[in-house]
Amino acid sequence: MHESYRDRIRMPSLLTRVTTATAAAEWIRDGMTVGMSGFTRAGDAKVVPMALAERARSEQLKITLMTGASLGSDVDKTLTEAGVLARRIPFQADATLRSAINRGEVMYIDHHLSETVELLRTQQIAPIDIAIIEAAAITETGALIPTTSVGNSASFAILADKVIVEINLTQSPDLEGLHDIFIPKRRPLREPIPIMTARDRVGGHAIEIPPEKIVAIVVTEKSDSSSTILPPDGETAAIAGHLVEFFRHEVNAGRLTEKLLPLQAGIGTIANAVMSGFIDSPFSGLTMYSEVLQDSTFELFDAGKLDFASGSSITLSPQKSREVFGDIGRYKDRLVLRPQEVSNHPEVIRRLGIIALNTALEADIYGNVNSTHVQGTHMMNGIGGSGDFARNAYLSIFATKSLAKDGRISSIVPMVSHVDHTEHDVDILVTEIGLADLRGLAPRERAEVIIGNCVAEPYRQMLRDYVAEASRRGGHTPHLLEQAFSWHTRYRLTGSMLPAA
Amino acid sequence: MHESYRDRIRMPSLLTRVTTATAAAEWIRDGMTVGMSGFTRAGDAKVVPMALAERARSEQLKITLMTGASLGSDVDKTLTEAGVLARRIPFQADATLRSAINRGEVMYIDHHLSETVELLRTQQIAPIDIAIIEAAAITETGALIPTTSVGNSASFAILADKVIVEINLTQSPDLEGLHDIFIPKRRPLREPIPIMTARDRVGGHAIEIPPEKIVAIVVTEKSDSSSTILPPDGETAAIAGHLVEFFRHEVNAGRLTEKLLPLQAGIGTIANAVMSGFIDSPFSGLTMYSEVLQDSTFELFDAGKLDFASGSSITLSPQKSREVFGDIGRYKDRLVLRPQEVSNHPEVIRRLGIIALNTALEADIYGNVNSTHVQGTHMMNGIGGSGDFARNAYLSIFATKSLAKDGRISSIVPMVSHVDHTEHDVDILVTEIGLADLRGLAPRERAEVIIGNCVAEPYRQMLRDYVAEASRRGGHTPHLLEQAFSWHTRYRLTGSMLPAA
Repeated sequence: MHESYRDRIRMPSLLTRVTTATAAAEWIRDGMTVGMSGFTRAGDAKVVPMALAERARSEQLKITLMTGASLGSDVDKTLTEAGVLARRIPFQADATLRSAINRGEVMYIDHHLSETVELLRTQQIAPIDIAIIEAAAITETGALIPTTSVGNSASFAILADKVIVEINLTQSPDLEGLHDIFIPKRRPLREPIPIMTARDRVGGHAIEIPPEKIVAIVVTEKSDSSSTILPPDGETAAIAGHLVEFFRHEVNAGRLTEKLLPLQAGIGTIANAVMSGFIDSPFSGLTMYSEVLQDSTFELFDAGKLDFASGSSITLSPQKSREVFGDIGRYKDRLVLRPQEVSNHPEVIRRLGIIALNTALEADIYGNVNSTHVQGTHMMNGIGGSGDFARNAYLSIFATKSLAKDGRISSIVPMVSHVDHTEHDVDILVTEIGLADLRGLAPRERAEVIIGNCVAEPYRQMLRDYVAEASRRGGHTPHLLEQAFSWHTRYRLTGSMLPAA
Repeated sequence: MHESYRDRIRMPSLLTRVTTATAAAEWIRDGMTVGMSGFTRAGDAKVVPMALAERARSEQLKITLMTGASLGSDVDKTLTEAGVLARRIPFQADATLRSAINRGEVMYIDHHLSETVELLRTQQIAPIDIAIIEAAAITETGALIPTTSVGNSASFAILADKVIVEINLTQSPDLEGLHDIFIPKRRPLREPIPIMTARDRVGGHAIEIPPEKIVAIVVTEKSDSSSTILPPDGETAAIAGHLVEFFRHEVNAGRLTEKLLPLQAGIGTIANAVMSGFIDSPFSGLTMYSEVLQDSTFELFDAGKLDFASGSSITLSPQKSREVFGDIGRYKDRLVLRPQEVSNHPEVIRRLGIIALNTALEADIYGNVNSTHVQGTHMMNGIGGSGDFARNAYLSIFATKSLAKDGRISSIVPMVSHVDHTEHDVDILVTEIGLADLRGLAPRERAEVIIGNCVAEPYRQMLRDYVAEASRRGGHTPHLLEQAFSWHTRYRLTGSMLPAA
């Protein structure tokens, strides 16, 4: 057993709770709802879920699993393969689980990420029986110090009857002090969230719970999984370029200053590449009020462009992870990690005036966005926090490459096959081809700008033909319903949205 | 000229600005953006727009017209017929204007109603050149006392270079004191909106502007248009019954008290009928935090069920209007009218935990809602405030009759032809057939509950067949894209969604 864990458990009476993952997992029974830490592969519970999967080899064991957001460490994969997941809430990004969801074997309920704990707190979804929370330490009073994410961990631990803690020795003890744990009061006593800038701290450093709720402590040495993002390429660089140009224009027009407004960037390659693109921009004194902080956040710090970043997790590439977590003290006074209810809270997003950058799977000629469903039916990951931000932002930007599958798919289609974000929540649409500024435009105008600025040929002409024919039938938002999904159907049948030559 | 108007203009130097509607309308020039008071037919500018339409007979005159929401007094109709409207923002409900929008002659940009003044304030849409505001009085300092709505009037008057005031002598001087004018500070100085209950007053009684901006004052004696809602019928009574039953269940389960939570009800017959249904319910001590206050609000006051109502306008039937405005003092301490930015503000809606009741034009088997587009193409009215409330509510309810056009249209379809509210923002779907509680359900489960509870035969069996076939193709949200709109197409071609016998 590790000796160093004793420094991490500062309430001596809790040392008796230290046990094995297998023994801790015994607390979890068939039919329970389990809340686990973890947000975008960061700070997830890593060993107790594996012990649970192991147990499922020999007994009937189905649970509802709630997390902050996506997990790493193959937790979702392993639990899926073991048949443990009956229900999964509110986000996932695992290929094996995704397949089970799309086969209808796991009931998946994706949420706007700010909302899950509101639903739990008001008992509108099944209560958490047990929480499994990764911690860097347990304080003298039995409070939990989170690691690389906060996510829903605080509310899970507060609302659960029992809490299992994974003390992870690979997580730096210097993470203590990074977190700001604020829990809104219950209605009707709820007060404003007093955050007026990205850097405001309004809560405590630890998750305060009655220590007697901690039924087991497991010591682990398993690192967070690394980020899966790809490096910038020519197309993501072009998207970043269009956005930098757009923001220069906004600054010149007097609508923004060179500090812009607090930035949110969704997870993934495109958003990360766009943020990296700000390194070579005229903007400085930037702040972020976002969910996940990726490599680009720290590149911007190092470039002297970024003053402060607020998030709910930190998810980095292997190299950047070594740099950042090897010396987190270097960044600590410029960082805060919050519960996802607060990082994504409509109240704060609207007040601060966030510039939100999220990724579209496909968009349509009127600016509706599909972020989740391939062919309108098959779940990719989930809506995540994009709806929290897009609806309430000062400016809502969606980015996508204009083509996929070597040009056999156009990301801009006549009508999206699933709507996650309506035209009202999409101010800017940008592809490597160009940028469509949709503010103040009616649907017919939006179609013209999107098709003209964001689409590659031959799809551009195909969309122009569609709009022309639809407009003859009239309407505020012209469509030919019998042809609206013909591109998707053609792809399903022929493997390409392009008509046969 | 009316003598009594002198009591309504309490800043003597402004008496020289009193003029005719025709002279006042001269301030408006071709190409201008004009902001007019008016929200759901209440408190609209009534005579200057008519003079403007008259002028358009003899000169080129096109404007962008912004309002709070829909207008009465045939203003939108008359301006449309005169060809004055180039652009219209953010809501309308006029048959003549609707036709022009659907012909593509008027560019219509509907907004989430809380957002228009945010866009104006940040110069993301064209600035207001001139505001035309109906007032009950002008104070000693030149501030405006609104009438039966606040809507966007305050921000329009504050942001415009010039203001024309319509002093309406038919509006009771006792309206003074009813309004609570709060304007959020500009970012980055913005602070929380300090509203913690529906009854909290956080601003002043009047719209404060530099009096020199008032370029003209016109005295009118034209009443607000009455509400166009229909009385409750058997189907709306059944919808109300299902909801009362649902809330009894929620109270029994301990999730709500008999006071429920602050209620929002969209405009129209169904929402009004449901609210009236609370008269014969076990709930009391109710509050409303809504947009428009309709007949049902005052019926609930008179029945001793409702303690307080916050809105942005009051729109009543002719008889109820005489009762209420003939003696507004009777209700005044239980009422407040706010700017629509505040009545619909995500921050306040989320904090208070609103129960939101809005109307669907059609809904689909997964709970997506179309509130606006007939056949996915032709605008009916606009999204209005439904998105502000549905996204941020404690509980989001959408109601519709299950059938339309004598059964030739099913309001529940395989896939909505336009999405205004995604499945994530729809907790309860209710028709006269029954109620679907969608909380915590995955899409496949949602389909089963919606089809089973809310749909009349033969559409119920048709939807079951659709789901069964779609599910064989797999996916988290099974669909047959090539058939998803076949019901809409059949209706367009045959006049019925039912297959030929």
